[in-house]
This record gives sequence, C-alpha cells and structure tokens, in this order.
Amino acid sequence: MISKNYIKLIHALERKKIRDEQGKFVLEGEKMLLEILNWKSDKLEHLFYTEGFKDSIVHFDSSKCTEITEKELKSISRLQTPNKALAIFQKWELLEVKSDFYIALDGVQDPGNMGTIMRLADWFGVPEIICSHDTVDCFNPKVVQATMGAIFRVQVRYEELETYLPKLNLPIYGALLEGENVYQTKLTPKGILVLGNEGKGISQLIQNIIDKPISIPRFGDAESLNVSTAGAILLSEFFRTV
Amino acid sequence: MISKNYIKLIHALERKKIRDEQGKFVLEGEKMLLEILNWKSDKLEHLFYTEGFKDSIVHFDSSKCTEITEKELKSISRLQTPNKALAIFQKWELLEVKSDFYIALDGVQDPGNMGTIMRLADWFGVPEIICSHDTVDCFNPKVVQATMGAIFRVQVRYEELETYLPKLNLPIYGALLEGENVYQTKLTPKGILVLGNEGKGISQLIQNIIDKPISIPRFGDAESLNVSTAGAILLSEFFRTV
Repeated sequence: MISKNYIKLIHALERKKIRDEQGKFVLEGEKMLLEILNWKSDKLEHLFYTEGFKDSIVHFDSSKCTEITEKELKSISRLQTPNKALAIFQKWELLEVKSDFYIALDGVQDPGNMGTIMRLADWFGVPEIICSHDTVDCFNPKVVQATMGAIFRVQVRYEELETYLPKLNLPIYGALLEGENVYQTKLTPKGILVLGNEGKGISQLIQNIIDKPISIPRFGDAESLNVSTAGAILLSEFFRTV
Repeated sequence: MISKNYIKLIHALERKKIRDEQGKFVLEGEKMLLEILNWKSDKLEHLFYTEGFKDSIVHFDSSKCTEITEKELKSISRLQTPNKALAIFQKWELLEVKSDFYIALDGVQDPGNMGTIMRLADWFGVPEIICSHDTVDCFNPKVVQATMGAIFRVQVRYEELETYLPKLNLPIYGALLEGENVYQTKLTPKGILVLGNEGKGISQLIQNIIDKPISIPRFGDAESLNVSTAGAILLSEFFRTV
C-alpha cells in the first residue's frame, strides 16, 4: 500500500519548483524502469509496482519497493494506461563532459520535442545537451516519458547560451531558414548544433554567436519543419560520413 | 453566439465514428485557418471566431462565420490556450495522385507522430501517404493540429497495404533495424518508404512485401528512434541528392 505522503509527493513533483526544491523526479513504465538497472540504479528512491512487475523486483533493493494495486497505480500515474510500475528518483549531479559535439536548445518549449531530441542525442551518441534557461525542464514528467530511457544517458545542462557556448571553442552551427544548404555543406561531428524555439526559432541574441547557419532545403509547401524532425535531419548530416 | 447544436457537434467530432458518419472534422487556430484561404476554402462549413480574428473575417464567406466570446471558444476548444478561431470542415474526396514517391504507414498510432509525418511529407513534396487501416485517423483533432496545415496539402489514403502497395509498381523500402545502412545505399526519390508502428515496427505481413530494408546506423545507446524522427532522416536521404 502507498502512503498518503508519497501520493502527495508524486503529484507535487509534476511541478518544476517542487522538483528543484526536493531534487527528485518521477518516471513510469516497466520498460524504462528495467533500463535503470544498467544506468542510474543508485538514484532510485522508491519504486511502486503492481503484481505484474513482481518477477522483476528481485533486481532491486527490496527496502525501496512497495507493491500496490492497479487502482493505486492509476491514482498516481499520469499515463492513460499506467504500466506496472512508477518510481521516484533523486536527480543526479552534472558531470564534466568533454565532447567534440554538443546539441544546444534555445527556448524549446514542448516536452515531447525535448524528450525526442534527447532520444536522438542518445542514438547519435551525443553525451550532453546545453539548454537556455527558458527551455523546458528535462525532468518534466512528459519529457522523461518521451526520452524512452535517454534521460539516464544524455546529460542536460541549463546555461546562459550566449556566454557558455563560445567558451567551448567549437564551431557553432544554427538551424536557420536562410542558412547554407545542409546537403552542400561538408560536415563532421565536431561542433555545436543549435536548435531554436518551436514558433520563433533561434533568438537574435543567440543568432549573433552562430558561426555557420545551416538549413534543410524545402521541396514542397510546408512553412517549416517540427524542431525534432529538423534536428534529426541535421544530426544525421553531421554523423552520416563517420 | 454559438448554438447548442454546434457545441454538441464539435465535441462529437472528437470521435472517429462521428467524423466518418458526418464527413466533417474540426480545425483550430488563427494561423492554420488563414492558410485554408489558399487551399481548401470551399470545404469550410462554419467558422467561429473571437474579436481578435475580426480583421481576417473579410476573406471568408460571412454567412459561414459567427463571432463568439473567449469563454465560448474555450468551451469548444481542445487547446489549453485556444487561439482566436475554430472551424468545422467538410472532408474532401480523395483525388487520383500519380507520384514517383509515397510514404506508407503500417499501424502508426500516436496522433503527434502522424501529424509530424504529414508535415514532413509536405516539406519534401510527397503528395500522398498510404496508411494501413489500423493507423490513426488523419482527421483526429490532435493529428490535424500537429500537421500545421499539411492536412490541406498532403492526401492520406487508408488501404490494405499488402495488396495496394505492390500495384504501384515502385520499389518498396522499409525502415527496419536490420536493414542496409541507409548512408551506404544509393537512393533517389522513386519508391515507397514504409514506416511501422511505434512499439512493434513493421508487421510481418508487410515485411513480406518489402524489397529493400534500410536502417539508420546507431552511434550511441538508444534502443530505437521515434518513428517521425526516423522518417525524417530516411526521407532526407531520399531527397538530399535531388
């Protein structure tokens, strides 16, 4: 059975302010929870599971696991079809990451886009995403679910991009509508790829520090591409000759 | 003021059964509604707008427009922040499309993915998407919003893929994890690109008709890519040398 205090905490952790104060976040679903065994299992604070997850519990510290009913899981889940287990995690400290290639996000707002971009970074082996302070929180529950586990492997850092990015001493590429045709640009995965806000693109402030504006040629009538699909195509162009 | 019958109809049109019976669907937001002026304006059945949209009304048949209050718009909108106007449209008849390149979707379920793929098709100038019958309905309100206007330009057809696709007499490419490295495959935009369900990929039945399995090399630890970002990368590979 789950205590009232835990129910209250889980709901409170939907808010960024509470996540920041408590240093905790929530993650749901059988598949992602089994992935942590290989990654940040030490960060598990408490796991709530239904009978269907029982066989998997042997892998976890039993003092941190509580069996609950389907009805209880439903009362704490944000998913329409809750999936066997939900856990509270402690956030982790940022590590020093040294990479030749980073993604930077300038004001990305949609949690689905953020999660999808983290999953893309994970696929292409990009270890860190650097975000402006007005980018959506990576521990937002909708982001966490959309990452499909990338939250454990791709580090997200929030910085003032205009001062932080130039210090990395890497060429700064920006996805801009009037940039150079990306298919005619020689690219290798050495640099920073900046992606902008869903509606407004990259802010003027950040455009000022971009060395190489790049864009994806349009063949049809659409006005723009979704930021995560544009990001996918550009990342692919950086990595395709590796 | 909006009538009770219209309120009832708008809510009922959230259900596919009602959309199919009535041959109608709902679309929201200033930007997309202004786009129809160039595309399917004859399909407008009725437009409900708030004061902020008044100046744009001159472009529409006034007998089909009703001014409503912000509060009324909120009561019929599915958006958290309703945007100036909402309209009911009549669905249109499918046209005969002759193209060298099509996208086919086998069981894509998520409305956001469906809308994003339609937007991608629109960007790359792909005129038609052919979907299995268990793919999400393209007139689902969440799909319509995610298309950002592509709904007016990209035609979506629902067919039995295993019989329909071979009749097109084009090479059938499929996004499969064990396919040929797409970066080492010579591609031109002549063929059909099949994308599969979010969890299960392309069904065995449809795998049987695929001539050329292709896949995106993985550089990191992610288990898979989201279907719309995988689709973005593969489409880009078909069109990048055009």
